[in-house]
Amino acid sequence: MTQIEIAKKGKISPQMKIVAEKEKIPLLILRERIKRGQIVILANKNHQNVLPIGIGLGLETKINANIGTSSLKSDLKNELEKLKTAIDSGTDTIMDLSLGGDIDLIRKTLIKNCSLPFGTVPVYQAAIEAGGIKKLNLANYLSVFEKQAKDGVDFMTVHAGITKRVFPLLKKRIMACVSRGGCIVLNWMRYHKKENFLFEGFDEILKLAKKYDVVLSLGDGLRPGCISDATDKAQIEELKTLGKLAKRAKKFGVQVIIEGPGHLPLNEIELNIKLEKKYCQGAPFFVLGPLPLDVAVGYDHIAGAIGGAIASWKGADFLCYLTPKEHIGLPEKEDVKEGVIVMRIAKEIGEIAKKNKDSLLRNKKMAIAREKLDWEEMLKYALFKEKFQELREKEIQSIPQLKKNRFCTMCGEFCVFLKKF
Amino acid sequence: MTQIEIAKKGKISPQMKIVAEKEKIPLLILRERIKRGQIVILANKNHQNVLPIGIGLGLETKINANIGTSSLKSDLKNELEKLKTAIDSGTDTIMDLSLGGDIDLIRKTLIKNCSLPFGTVPVYQAAIEAGGIKKLNLANYLSVFEKQAKDGVDFMTVHAGITKRVFPLLKKRIMACVSRGGCIVLNWMRYHKKENFLFEGFDEILKLAKKYDVVLSLGDGLRPGCISDATDKAQIEELKTLGKLAKRAKKFGVQVIIEGPGHLPLNEIELNIKLEKKYCQGAPFFVLGPLPLDVAVGYDHIAGAIGGAIASWKGADFLCYLTPKEHIGLPEKEDVKEGVIVMRIAKEIGEIAKKNKDSLLRNKKMAIAREKLDWEEMLKYALFKEKFQELREKEIQSIPQLKKNRFCTMCGEFCVFLKKF
Repeated sequence: MTQIEIAKKGKISPQMKIVAEKEKIPLLILRERIKRGQIVILANKNHQNVLPIGIGLGLETKINANIGTSSLKSDLKNELEKLKTAIDSGTDTIMDLSLGGDIDLIRKTLIKNCSLPFGTVPVYQAAIEAGGIKKLNLANYLSVFEKQAKDGVDFMTVHAGITKRVFPLLKKRIMACVSRGGCIVLNWMRYHKKENFLFEGFDEILKLAKKYDVVLSLGDGLRPGCISDATDKAQIEELKTLGKLAKRAKKFGVQVIIEGPGHLPLNEIELNIKLEKKYCQGAPFFVLGPLPLDVAVGYDHIAGAIGGAIASWKGADFLCYLTPKEHIGLPEKEDVKEGVIVMRIAKEIGEIAKKNKDSLLRNKKMAIAREKLDWEEMLKYALFKEKFQELREKEIQSIPQLKKNRFCTMCGEFCVFLKKF
Repeated sequence: MTQIEIAKKGKISPQMKIVAEKEKIPLLILRERIKRGQIVILANKNHQNVLPIGIGLGLETKINANIGTSSLKSDLKNELEKLKTAIDSGTDTIMDLSLGGDIDLIRKTLIKNCSLPFGTVPVYQAAIEAGGIKKLNLANYLSVFEKQAKDGVDFMTVHAGITKRVFPLLKKRIMACVSRGGCIVLNWMRYHKKENFLFEGFDEILKLAKKYDVVLSLGDGLRPGCISDATDKAQIEELKTLGKLAKRAKKFGVQVIIEGPGHLPLNEIELNIKLEKKYCQGAPFFVLGPLPLDVAVGYDHIAGAIGGAIASWKGADFLCYLTPKEHIGLPEKEDVKEGVIVMRIAKEIGEIAKKNKDSLLRNKKMAIAREKLDWEEMLKYALFKEKFQELREKEIQSIPQLKKNRFCTMCGEFCVFLKKF
């Protein structure tokens, strides 16, 4: 049985116990929310040693890091390093978006080395294995979906919300589609002159998802690719379809999350979350950033963290990171690290704004340590301990006086914490 | 006459013309807002070649970068490099917070090399020259104030809002005071058992400010130093006093801005801006970040940019940057660069949210260029051109195929912009 089926039957799974304890949420509330589809637990039955995590209403916001190859950069060793970096930097989940190299081998190797929930976008491999959209069909898609599910993939993006109705709406955009999966689907529809095979074959996908308890991440193939296209008709049309599909999935016993933008001005982030919660019956919302600026190339991870902090505060449940290479190229190890770090900052800022008790206490303890100029104690509460130590050490080495004094080079003996009022 | 006096007389200054043109705001509206104290123009009569800027209602949000020495790190050459870096990175104003070395020489040299508006906190030098708080008094403060004004300092922080009434309120805080200037004032008050000499001597300060048209930046000596102390009674008590002082200043013909937090949770930023606008008759609000997290040591500039983006969107007029060295030490050149860059991102995100037409157009043009895979055109609209070129060049050098193809290593031939719908 899937987690939602177990919840519907009024039973408790071991995964629910783990999540309830980790998140300090009463088990019965957790179960009720899983039943209603407001919370999902990522834990494919076949993912050995997966540490299940919960995503959704009332839980801590989670972060996803995308890794994976492209046809131009494909090196398994490199991907393993990116995986390790993302985990060490503190991501909650990993997605393998590989398009190049031996996709099966890459995925299997990464999953074996990853106890965090692991996601994929099966339509990539399906299109590549079919040699393009001409021979791509539901049957070969389902076979890729099942092979990935068997490997233990915990959540999969499915672009089933794109329908024929969106084509005229795309004409009004600057960027018709900025989703790779979305483009595959749109091209397939145009070439075959048929309705989206993922939409038409959704029941078949549900059967496989249920078998392995794969959480469906209903993809936003039409997420806006620039501020000008934000919250437009194409986007909302797809969101409404995703809401209907989410309802069917939950009824069938399959857990779902909903993917969202993308490029959104800061003043439309809250609106987008409200719309998702309304049209998708409160299903967990998985946003990419959001990215509230088009022109910060090289620093998109930071712009994305600004969007992510507000999104998290306003109710988004799951934040996909961006890296400094967004809009420029495939991220490398150091980009992955920076991407995870800044999104963790966004998440923590969101937790404080949501009045998460543990976060507030940690910040309070940091403040008390800081006021005492107790550097050892500050280190305990610093979010990035390695960075903290590196910077403090550098200061002490350059200014020997700091060894006996507890102030820093910013204010020296004018340190505000030397005076007590 | 000062800018506010000129506005009150219904006249137009050359500085008003420059600001109105740069900001695309009708001159009469600008003048009306200067008259009401909702906008200030930073331009000391003695600051040779200063490019005047406007700060306040309806204008683009501005960014300030703090530089300056401490007693432990004091090197004029280094400060000149930090100045150049801050200017090159795109700050709108500079503040010299020097505490160490030959403070007069440092300031004079920096101003000579800075056509951006330049700020200081005269109480630092006054306290240092008096040899501490015991001999510090209004007379020696005023003499420092005037010497700095003569040098062309365009805006000065004055911690006149701290009064005897705040002492009992400080007992309830984790961090009584995290402002260096605030601490000097509090210590002086406690030692001399007198009311704040900046509060008592405010009329004398106004006379000097008026003489040179120095904009007073009414300092928030009691800004919260941690999330736990945010928006507390001590902070609000001082803010109300600042509001009364602002009223007196404007009546006297002196321009004022109000300084604000500091550590604030994301969900209290808008409230703080509303309170400032209410208590201070809509005077421009100059915030430090705000910093919505206490534990991001090493990445405080990014946490501060998250606070800054929201603050800018919600009506803060002037954002002081933070650097990666916040809470750790005095920033170096590279810290200054990162600090300015991330605050510029915050500012631009705020402009988009405020529907700034120029910003929206620039983002739209970037989107059009991106959709065409026109990298030369994208470069035109990139906020950080150097970074853009560096990253793109690195990609092209590593993958020769990119020379003939226009896609990037992220998606290769799966590039979403190769398909048109």
